[in-house]
Amino acid sequence: MAGGELDRAMQYLAKLPGLGPRSARRAILHLMKRRESLMIPLAEALAEAARAVRPCSTCGNLDTVDPCGICTDPRRDPHTICVVEDVADVWALERAAAFGGRYHVIGGVLSALDGVGPDDLNVDTLVARASDPAVTEVILAMNATVDGQTTAHYIADRLAPTGVRVSRLAHGVPVGGELDYLDDGTLAQALRARQAV
Amino acid sequence: MAGGELDRAMQYLAKLPGLGPRSARRAILHLMKRRESLMIPLAEALAEAARAVRPCSTCGNLDTVDPCGICTDPRRDPHTICVVEDVADVWALERAAAFGGRYHVIGGVLSALDGVGPDDLNVDTLVARASDPAVTEVILAMNATVDGQTTAHYIADRLAPTGVRVSRLAHGVPVGGELDYLDDGTLAQALRARQAV
Repeated sequence: MAGGELDRAMQYLAKLPGLGPRSARRAILHLMKRRESLMIPLAEALAEAARAVRPCSTCGNLDTVDPCGICTDPRRDPHTICVVEDVADVWALERAAAFGGRYHVIGGVLSALDGVGPDDLNVDTLVARASDPAVTEVILAMNATVDGQTTAHYIADRLAPTGVRVSRLAHGVPVGGELDYLDDGTLAQALRARQAV
Repeated sequence: MAGGELDRAMQYLAKLPGLGPRSARRAILHLMKRRESLMIPLAEALAEAARAVRPCSTCGNLDTVDPCGICTDPRRDPHTICVVEDVADVWALERAAAFGGRYHVIGGVLSALDGVGPDDLNVDTLVARASDPAVTEVILAMNATVDGQTTAHYIADRLAPTGVRVSRLAHGVPVGGELDYLDDGTLAQALRARQAV
């Protein structure tokens, strides 16, 4: 191989999700052929992001300022908090531009298998935020997985004493989805939650 | 999104082979969660490799020294040159530990479709190296693709005036390969090139 430098970069690249040893080798050669246009800019962007980007101490979103841009944006509704598992979910909801309130990233889901308990999640700060009388609704937007729904139940229980209204995302047929391709669970849920036309 | 820093790093990550916008988002969040153990080391390793690693001016292999470690290794046979398309192929042959001579990386294959002509490949330096009387054999180890084999023919023609012995890798049934799963071309070639037991 080509000395320790390339090997080391390759070993780190191979730890990224979606890359393994073989694709890390392809990636590093791709980078070496684009030293000025991609390799050095990528190294600098990673170092700069690692230096400047921090979790928001209020909501857990990632930003260069703390509190984050969403928490301090006066145009966003301060009465509604949308609870998500991960920062990626904040990004997904922001891309959809479907939510105008604020977020709370709990940083994972309860999972006996992975040893994630309530203390590993960012729930105490959520209860504190929801106890503010200005907050009128908390929307639980966990993934529609078993762990996600377990976590949503746990959070709803924790929020009950605050008296805040707690809701969850609707489950049903995805927009553009074809019934023939949907799993039984989704179909059953869509039937149970049918709505008057 | 989370400010320009993360976006920029994500856009560069999305340009790596095997990663797209979605996996780049996953990768950057994975990195942010491992800031000290992975993100900063990766940034440093990439910057260091970009700074220190250069193509060998003799053979085209990547190394921190020029000529590269393989070209200057006195234990390697100086009489045989193995010609490969890319540095990845040098690594593959070195992993197999099946070749004790030196390499020549031509840096691609002839491809009318991609606009790669003879002048884009590192062939002149190969002809110069092969003209050294100390070199007795040149092994063409291009990929067994149409472009690879076209390129091998072109190189063999260019090497003919030097009088050096030119060989190519054997084609046939891969070790561990099952006939039922092999393509017709490989089977036909394996039959044509059958060997006495």
